[in-house]
Formats: sequence, C-alpha cells, structure tokens
Amino acid sequence: MSESLPRKQFVEDLTDQTDDFSRWYNEVVRKAQLADYSPVRGSMVIRPYGYGLWENMQRLLDRRIKDTGHQNAYFPLLIPESLLKLEADHVEGFAPECAWVTEGGSEKLEERYAIRPTSEAIIGHMYSRWIESYRDLPVLINQWANVMRWEKVTRLFLRTAEFLWQEGHTAHANEPECLEEVLRMLEVYRDFVENELAIPVYAGKKSDSERFAGAQDTYSIEALMRDGKALQAGTSHHLGQHFARVFDITYQDEQGRRQFVWQTSWGVSTRLVGAIVMTHGDDQGLRLPPNVAPIQAVVVPIWRKDADRAAVSEFVAKVKQAIGGVVRLHVDDRDQYTPGWKYNEYEMRGVPVRLEIGPKDVANNAVMSVRRDTRIKESIPFDQLAQRLPALLADIQRTLFEQAKTFRDDSTVLAGSKEEVIAHFAAEKRGLVAVAWDGSAAFEAEVKEACGATLRCMPIDLSRFGSLEKPGHRVALFARAY
Amino acid sequence: MSESLPRKQFVEDLTDQTDDFSRWYNEVVRKAQLADYSPVRGSMVIRPYGYGLWENMQRLLDRRIKDTGHQNAYFPLLIPESLLKLEADHVEGFAPECAWVTEGGSEKLEERYAIRPTSEAIIGHMYSRWIESYRDLPVLINQWANVMRWEKVTRLFLRTAEFLWQEGHTAHANEPECLEEVLRMLEVYRDFVENELAIPVYAGKKSDSERFAGAQDTYSIEALMRDGKALQAGTSHHLGQHFARVFDITYQDEQGRRQFVWQTSWGVSTRLVGAIVMTHGDDQGLRLPPNVAPIQAVVVPIWRKDADRAAVSEFVAKVKQAIGGVVRLHVDDRDQYTPGWKYNEYEMRGVPVRLEIGPKDVANNAVMSVRRDTRIKESIPFDQLAQRLPALLADIQRTLFEQAKTFRDDSTVLAGSKEEVIAHFAAEKRGLVAVAWDGSAAFEAEVKEACGATLRCMPIDLSRFGSLEKPGHRVALFARAY
Repeated sequence: MSESLPRKQFVEDLTDQTDDFSRWYNEVVRKAQLADYSPVRGSMVIRPYGYGLWENMQRLLDRRIKDTGHQNAYFPLLIPESLLKLEADHVEGFAPECAWVTEGGSEKLEERYAIRPTSEAIIGHMYSRWIESYRDLPVLINQWANVMRWEKVTRLFLRTAEFLWQEGHTAHANEPECLEEVLRMLEVYRDFVENELAIPVYAGKKSDSERFAGAQDTYSIEALMRDGKALQAGTSHHLGQHFARVFDITYQDEQGRRQFVWQTSWGVSTRLVGAIVMTHGDDQGLRLPPNVAPIQAVVVPIWRKDADRAAVSEFVAKVKQAIGGVVRLHVDDRDQYTPGWKYNEYEMRGVPVRLEIGPKDVANNAVMSVRRDTRIKESIPFDQLAQRLPALLADIQRTLFEQAKTFRDDSTVLAGSKEEVIAHFAAEKRGLVAVAWDGSAAFEAEVKEACGATLRCMPIDLSRFGSLEKPGHRVALFARAY
Repeated sequence: MSESLPRKQFVEDLTDQTDDFSRWYNEVVRKAQLADYSPVRGSMVIRPYGYGLWENMQRLLDRRIKDTGHQNAYFPLLIPESLLKLEADHVEGFAPECAWVTEGGSEKLEERYAIRPTSEAIIGHMYSRWIESYRDLPVLINQWANVMRWEKVTRLFLRTAEFLWQEGHTAHANEPECLEEVLRMLEVYRDFVENELAIPVYAGKKSDSERFAGAQDTYSIEALMRDGKALQAGTSHHLGQHFARVFDITYQDEQGRRQFVWQTSWGVSTRLVGAIVMTHGDDQGLRLPPNVAPIQAVVVPIWRKDADRAAVSEFVAKVKQAIGGVVRLHVDDRDQYTPGWKYNEYEMRGVPVRLEIGPKDVANNAVMSVRRDTRIKESIPFDQLAQRLPALLADIQRTLFEQAKTFRDDSTVLAGSKEEVIAHFAAEKRGLVAVAWDGSAAFEAEVKEACGATLRCMPIDLSRFGSLEKPGHRVALFARAY
C-alpha cells in the first residue's frame, strides 16, 4: 500500500467503471478522501470523510446490537500463542496470517504474542473465569476493535492487514438458544446492511469448505458488487461447544450438573465501506446512502457580482439556521473554488443532495436542490425546506436500494446443473447462479477449478428458488467473489 | 496482571481505604466489574460495566472535540522503526517501552514495526503528503485508538501495557494559532473532567523535565486522588516545528514561500476511569458521577409475600415507563438475590440513586429514593419522579464535585521555600504544595531525591497563589504522583 498518486488530480480524471472497475475503485476511494495508502505494509489510513461514514455506520449498528441485549467490552490486543493454539482448526486457519510480537521494550519475549486476528481465544479464556452458573447465562458481549491479518494481497477497505470491526461473542446454556442467537444477529446484519447501507443481500449458510476456522456452522450475508462479483458482507458463526471444550467454559445447570456452554461469534468490518462504494458508485464517483452519509446536503453559494454576495450569504445563513438541525448539512463558502469545481467535488464524494443558492434563488425565496443519484433538480421554497429535504433524502435512500436490488436480482440466474453453472461463469464471469447442490465438496471444487466461482451461501429465503428444490439437495448460490 | 481473586467474594470483604488504599483500589475495580486481569502481560480486560462508563466519557468528550472543529480519523496501529527514529527525543522517550512486531505470517520482517505508543510519527508522515498550501491549514484531526507501552509495573486503568485513548494531532500556519489550539484543548479537558467526571483539576504547564518526548512545551491537568497523590489527567502538547522539520511537513504561504507547519497533540485515556474511582470512591465501593454512570438509577423491587408480587411488579413497570427515557434506568428483578444483597451490590458499583419499591411504596403511589453519595432517603411521589430524579442526579453530580474540590483545596498548601516543600512531604507524603520555583532543574531534582515529589505543573490560574509570585520565579505545584 505504498503506491502513490500525484499530490493533486482532477475529478475529471476518474476512470470509467466499465474500462477498469478495479482502477475506478481505487481512484474513487482516494479522490473522495475516504482513505489513503500508508507506509505500513498492507495498512491504510482512514481519512476523516471515510471515518465519518464509519462512525455513522457504527452508531446505527451499535444501537441494534444494544437493542438485542448486548453490551460492549474491550479485550487485549495481544493473544499468547499458547492460547491461540488450543483450538486446532482455529490456529490452523489463523496462525499463517498473524503478525507476531516477539520483543517488548529491549527484551526478547519468552512466548510470542499474536496481534488478534479475531478474539475467540482470549475471550474464551476470560469466559471460563467469569461463567459459573446457569444464572450467569447468556453472556452477550460485543467488542469494537482493530484486528490484523497479514494478507499477501491487499486492497483499500476490502482486504487490509489491519481493519476495524465489531465482534460479538456470546455464551448460552443450550444449543437451541445458541442457534437462535446466530440467526438473530444474521438478521440484524441483513436489516442494517439493507436498510442503512441500501445494499440488498442474500442471507444463508456457508458450506463446510467456507466456514470459519473453529466453527460448527457459519452463516453470512452476501452482496453483489456492480462489477458482478459477490462480497461477503457479514458473518454469524455457530461455534457449538468447540471452544467451550478446549477453554473449559462450563456452568452448573439447575440440577447442579457441570455443562459446557454453547457459543456464537459474529462480525462486520470496515470492508462494508468498500461494499458501499462498489454497490452505489458511478462514473462520477461515490453515491452515499443518506442514512450514513457524513454530509447529507451541501450548500453551494453562488455569486458573480460582489453586489450579490451579501444577499446570498444572508440567505445561506437563514437556510443553515432552518435545516442545520434537521439534516447533516455542510456549507462550502470557500472563495478560492468556483461553484462548478465544488459541484464536481461533492459529486465525487457522493453527497446525496446539493443545494445551490444564487441571486435568483434568493429572489424566489427558494433553494435549487440537485439529487446525486438521479441528477433531478427541484426548486424548494424556503418554507418547505425542513419538510421536503428529509423526504428527498428518504427517497434517495429508497432509490439506491431499489437500483441495487434490481441489478442484483437481474444478475441472479438459475442453473439446472453443475455444467450450467460452469458454462455461465465461463461465458460471463459475473452475477450469482443458483443451483440444486448435492452437498458434496467435489461439486464445489469442480466449479471453482473450472471457472473460479465459489459457493457463497445456501439462502434461507427460497422464495425465488423454489423451482430448484429437490430431495437430497440444497439450493446454493455460486459467484466469483472478493 | 495474571494475579487472580477467588471466583466470588462478598461485597463486605472490601478493604478500607485508610488501611490500604492501593489494595482497596484493586478490589473495587474488580468487585464493581469495571475490569479484570488478563493472561497477557500488563494488559487488562475492560468489562461491560467499565466499558459502558468509558463509552459515556467518549460520547461527552467526542462532542466537545467535534464542537471545536475537529474530525476523527484512523491511522495504522504499526509504526515502522525508521519513522519512529526520525525525531531524536521522541524515539529516545518511546523506543524503550515499545512492543515490536518482527514476524508477519511465517516470515521474518526486514524492518521492525512498533505497536504505536503514540502516533506523532505516522501522522506526521501522512501530513507531509496531505498539506500543500496555506489553504489546507489548519488540519484538525483526532483519533480514538488503542496504544501500547511496555511498562514494567502495571496497575488496572492507571498504567497498563495497552490502553485506550484519544489523540488529537493538529497542524497550523503559525505559532500563535498553534499555542491557541494547545490552550483551547487544555480548557476542553478541564471542562470535561470537572463538569462530567466531577474531578477538580489544576491546569498548567509542565517543566522541561516532565514534558512529552519531542514536544516544545507540555501542558496538563492535574487531579488529586483521595490518598493524597496527584494524577496527570490529560496533556496538551505544543510540538513547535520539531516534527515538521524531520517529517518535512511544509506549506506554501500566501506569498508562495515554503514554510514549516506548527503542530499540537493532545490526549486523555482510560486512565481517567482510575481517576474517577480514586476521586469519588469510599469504603462501600464506587461512587459514579451521574453524567457518566452507565446506570443512573437502579430499581430494586421488594416483596415478602407472593401476594405483594403482582402489585409491586405492575408499579415497577409503570415507573420504568415513566422515567426509562429520562434517565439511564436499570430494573433488577432477579429472584435469586435478596433486596439487601442488591443494595450492597449497587453501592459497590456506585450507582448514584437506588429506587426501592415495596408494597408500602405502591400504597403511597411513591418511590423511596436513596442517594449513593449521602445515603439520604427521600420518598418521591410517582407523579414527580420524571422531574425530581434528574434534579437529584444533578445535585449528586454537584455534590461529588464540591466534596472533591474541598478535599483538593484543603490538601493544597503554600510553601515559602524548597526546604518547606521537602519538609511537608517528609512529614505527610500527601497533597499538593505550591512554591515559588526558580526554574532550575536542580530544585526539582533535589525535591524528588529528598521526598519523591515531582513538579506537577505551573498553574495558569494563580488566584490562590498570588502571594507566592516573585520576580524570576514561577509558581509551581509539587506532589507525589501516580
């Protein structure tokens, strides 16, 4: 991530999505100032605009996590190698991509510490000390934290050595309650991603080959990017009693018997910022869903003659006063940039609504609004602004979701056989293909080998796939994926 | 931090403050479930109750940081050794206490990475890429993050290898604006700590021997704990052009000349949780300031006969309905614990107000409130609850501050000479001593050598110390400190 752009480039230079989607993506992320490369291998800097987006996402998801009874806590960044090694599948999955601390101060450490790639091990250790009785259950804890996975190939937001996420870790008295929690949080993620980020997803179960290292079952939500590749947008794991057995997490039940707990873990990360970019962006740059946009509306004052300036400024102040508390508003009154330059900049940055205020608007006691998604202009009388603007933002939120859903649905096709799946990706290399899967790893391996597509999930909602159901098979969605 | 308490201990076992303050502190932090030891050397686990407190603190401080024009961002956890080494004082101060990453995946790294002990180096590097013109200034960025300092002796919240904090990093066109920012943020900290945490502080400048590694000047706020030791509660650094010169952070001024920027950095950490415990706690446990308490009022339902249960539960539900949106309310309706057990538990956990609801209260259509700070009981008619409870909480907030301020003021004495400073600490070992300081390092060294007290700060507000002012001297506060 030490690649470097010239210090300033113009908005007009943006690559078209159809020419080179990957290049378009990197340019948008940097030109919109969501993030930048850093001198640290595989790590990025999340700039204020990108972090403001993440803060809004955090707030909306954190509320849902708390509303479902969870509390936040914080566990150590470092994990002793001996703890990480206790669960065999877990260490096999994560050890190869750990960053290791081997020296502290001027001393060589007796045992290596991994920077957490995920926290099941350290949290399992603590739960074994905290949980004694059925009265202590369920334990419902979430953590917002940075984690590190030493990936070879990295990409801003989508795959970085360090990333930010939340990881929930719960413990339950029995399997039904555990599974209920797994599915509850999968539904929380679906609701959050669809209703706040305007990204439609398929929620379903992973195959054995794609499940989390150490889990009994993994569930995920899968989204489709505009280049036709799928992206795993969140996961919810049924850990069974795997960690309970190796970390000795037990409780006394009501009859005084010692029992192992049942556990879940679930997480989403800053990867979702990349998902927003690749779901809604266009050739002019970002299009941010209003619910999470750091700036929901930007005011651009316009004057040609100095004589107009005072009247425009006064009207802008009045507008700010009227709606500054209603929407996240930014007034760009910088003198050194022209209105046209600002239009381009805020289109690149995906601000949902631009409000142009010039002498004519002042004369009309109105504001000219321009939607980022449809470019539709509408003059809004000053007195209606506080009502109309939130309605406009709600409509943009809805429109972005509908556009993405239409694209996703149109890009989801049904195949009658493994051969049809392979033929689809050999020809098109994009979209999602649903097929009746026989449950074998050989089927998955053959598809992957032939065309690079993998089994994304077995969707829970089969309403679109009923025709594929047949005995001894599960409906599965295949795609090439990030 | 691998020391371990028996799994359950009773509230009654709490050590008295006067018997052993340090032991009292560790017990309170663990019994109130603010934090726990972890298997990672020097690192602690912040439990949900402690983290809930930190979240409230974050929210109140973050609002102030944003209201003064700053934006949040996120920079890499790892810092290449070569970057850390650029500023000579900085590396000398921090390198000895860094944790070092030397291996990634299965490979030995070519260069060591430090886990950030603070982020001046990595942020300075990025600023050199982002800042070009006077139009880009000031840059006002804050980061909420974990940091790591490989301390030899650690203590829950006060000194841990890993801790959570915010660190502001700003860049300015000239020194006056830079100094204005340093003092603005010092004042933000004073306001936050005094008005939200109810901890009175002295704000002032550090001597050269106590300033931040790499800074031109350091300012701090200093609090006094109940055992008479001072605690540095926040710092604001005037970095001058030290980092700008070594990281080459320059801008073109309005005349087109290349200039180095002026920088500040400032931070407070989870150490403030320890300050709350040691400022307000008593022999029954925590006393939390209502503004940041995770639970502001706890409802304890009481019934002896099963016949009372329905009426009490119904009234409790009515109370929850009436004030659940007004204050942070928790209803403890667990059957397996007695009301008396719950009283002790919530006193230990420092919940500002307890609301007892029994058959008599139901009959009176009232709730019996008990203040944690003064133990004063007051029956509040149901209809007045939504007005009276917030007023009660405001009074507790004020009372905690006044008590702490009286203690702090009574423990601040004036000395006429270095010898009097030494004599004070030799005899009492506690409190703050103000003295006219000649500005020499020899004075500081002699005091420290003789009695362990250090120069905490040169207070900005001299209203209490006017009698000490004399030419060629600065009023300085000495104390033994955490």
